[in-house]
Amino acid sequence: MSEVIATYLLEAKPESLEKKAEAIAVGLTVGSWTNLPAVEQAQLERHKGRVVEAKMETNNKARISVEYPNLNFSNDLPAILTTTFGKFSLDGKVRLIDLAFSNEVKKGYPGPKFGIEGIRELTNAYNRPLLMSIFKGVIGRNLSSLKEQMKAQALGGIDIVKDDEILFENDQTPLEKRIPVCQEALRESYEETGKRTLHAVNLTGKTMELKDNAYKAVELGADLLLFNTFAYGLDVMQALAEDPNIPLPIMAHPAFSGTMISSPDYGVSPGLLLGKLARMAGADLVLFPSPYGSVAMAKEETQAIAQNLTSEEPVFKKAFPVPSAGIHPGLTPKLIADFGIDSIINAGGGIHGHPGGAAAGGKAFVQAIDAVLNHKSLIEAAAEYQELAQAIELWGGE
Amino acid sequence: MSEVIATYLLEAKPESLEKKAEAIAVGLTVGSWTNLPAVEQAQLERHKGRVVEAKMETNNKARISVEYPNLNFSNDLPAILTTTFGKFSLDGKVRLIDLAFSNEVKKGYPGPKFGIEGIRELTNAYNRPLLMSIFKGVIGRNLSSLKEQMKAQALGGIDIVKDDEILFENDQTPLEKRIPVCQEALRESYEETGKRTLHAVNLTGKTMELKDNAYKAVELGADLLLFNTFAYGLDVMQALAEDPNIPLPIMAHPAFSGTMISSPDYGVSPGLLLGKLARMAGADLVLFPSPYGSVAMAKEETQAIAQNLTSEEPVFKKAFPVPSAGIHPGLTPKLIADFGIDSIINAGGGIHGHPGGAAAGGKAFVQAIDAVLNHKSLIEAAAEYQELAQAIELWGGE
Repeated sequence: MSEVIATYLLEAKPESLEKKAEAIAVGLTVGSWTNLPAVEQAQLERHKGRVVEAKMETNNKARISVEYPNLNFSNDLPAILTTTFGKFSLDGKVRLIDLAFSNEVKKGYPGPKFGIEGIRELTNAYNRPLLMSIFKGVIGRNLSSLKEQMKAQALGGIDIVKDDEILFENDQTPLEKRIPVCQEALRESYEETGKRTLHAVNLTGKTMELKDNAYKAVELGADLLLFNTFAYGLDVMQALAEDPNIPLPIMAHPAFSGTMISSPDYGVSPGLLLGKLARMAGADLVLFPSPYGSVAMAKEETQAIAQNLTSEEPVFKKAFPVPSAGIHPGLTPKLIADFGIDSIINAGGGIHGHPGGAAAGGKAFVQAIDAVLNHKSLIEAAAEYQELAQAIELWGGE
Repeated sequence: MSEVIATYLLEAKPESLEKKAEAIAVGLTVGSWTNLPAVEQAQLERHKGRVVEAKMETNNKARISVEYPNLNFSNDLPAILTTTFGKFSLDGKVRLIDLAFSNEVKKGYPGPKFGIEGIRELTNAYNRPLLMSIFKGVIGRNLSSLKEQMKAQALGGIDIVKDDEILFENDQTPLEKRIPVCQEALRESYEETGKRTLHAVNLTGKTMELKDNAYKAVELGADLLLFNTFAYGLDVMQALAEDPNIPLPIMAHPAFSGTMISSPDYGVSPGLLLGKLARMAGADLVLFPSPYGSVAMAKEETQAIAQNLTSEEPVFKKAFPVPSAGIHPGLTPKLIADFGIDSIINAGGGIHGHPGGAAAGGKAFVQAIDAVLNHKSLIEAAAEYQELAQAIELWGGE
């Protein structure tokens, strides 16, 4: 039997809990049940939702799990989201906290095309967290400014440099000029350092033009695609991930996802949306707010995202968690403790704001990662490394 | 000058209000400002966000409006949503309450293809609210059951019958069989009553298959398309609306939109998402929770949606507001008082649950609308009309 089990957290009273759970299971599937003739019940039995669990979590909040037979929906995310949390999302204080999929359902989804192992091969980076940096303040800047920024970042030993997610097609740095110029910077850096850096290019445009824009990016030599998944839709990302003519890793950006995940009472849990569903729909890397910065997410929620991206599971490859915002070299021990080496350390201000510039900022992170993996404190390592010492002086770190 | 003005409601303190507003305007555009050399400020001036308004609304909540130059984004909704509420949507208690678009920006969007006037022509229904009904409990049912339901609804004088939004492609009632069978029921009804009823067909499937599915629906004779806009993305609906080979009205269903609009502190206001943006992206009719039922929305929010769908404005046609859920004939006076005649009265249980069946349920609504437009109370009209009398006895009404 193939199915989806949805788990909700919602307002409920103990005395009417079971009735409420049954009302969901019936209301979101066959519509009515107890008043149906036995012959109709027999026909509809295999379409009816089934209450898997219903229990009070607190005085007034219940956790209810309902199993939806896959006979009821086509195997795509819009159908599953509409079935499990369509009109129900509008029904007062209710939050979708998990969806569990049978393997048969999962097989309808691509999962990460490269996954953690594939990205490690592309970056030639093993047994350590990857290091990523973000272009800063690129709106209104020209190509040579972009190239300069790209080269400085690459010289610092960064594995992946990502476009700013708010950089759209524009006269000064359109895709077709930006990709070659950035690749040129990356070649120059490689000649100096022998280290390869990849460029994650922001894939933008109208939904129906995305594939063509992605083909163009592939042809121009893009290394990865950055995608504002939640401003489009998970199913749109899935279409890109499933296209064999787009043989690039996809990095899902959480822009606009705050509209769905931020309230504790409504919407969808971050672990489900940015973790499980993003992985299933084909993200190889997923950015989310780190628990440390000013734009912070609760630590347990960031852990749930990372867990859902990296858990061993039979159908999908693992995806890289990328906790972002507020990251500086001094946080490296904490990042590795919290997210392990199968994660990406991603910084913007923590690289560009280094007193020695972006290249020094990158080096300070490389040094910090090296120290942690060699069981040294940052203070110890700082005695050897000037860039790390400067970073710790500015931002702190132990 | 062409631009988008975003208005936010967010936590703020009076003493840091101006600083916070400026941080948004700079942070979501050029990145930094005060520390830039004058020559760079001159280059970036036309890209910088501008604070339009910043005022405290309550003790701890502020309303801040920021103007974003359209130079910064391509003119599509994913770009605009990412620019105005991308990472910012993740930044604590903040809600996007409005987006105001210059006419130049608006011209990049289709708006309703038919609009209220076009739908009135299709249904031949003027100077009154339209009447819509919803299939009930169709999952697991076969074609003849669907046909029977369709005919009963049409015989009641309904203008538009909509598919259940959770009816996806399935073996028993797939699109290609469902449309002709329902059209057959509608022809039979027309022969008996002389009144034409339209069928809104649920357009489903993966994003990249939607256009082909829509072409198929057009070829099979569908009258309108029902679409789970928010389980896909507004830009996906726009692509359907812009396609000249899909010459059908689009009815936007609010499934999954509760994830974005339900919290008062986070997400997007219903008036913006289900009203302004849905209209702009091409919805001819928009369903939303009525203020009356068990799945209810606050009246002022339903009014904001209806206002944004029907306001006079230079670029877009008007779209029909469809307040839904909990509607029975006794609510007709209130519906017309609250939403005017340029709205659609939409009922499920309030039609199928009529003691005389769905046809009688439709008639009771037709009678109630007629009474209100002729300045009669429902009680007065019920003296003449048996179906209305039965409805009022069951559900109440004055």
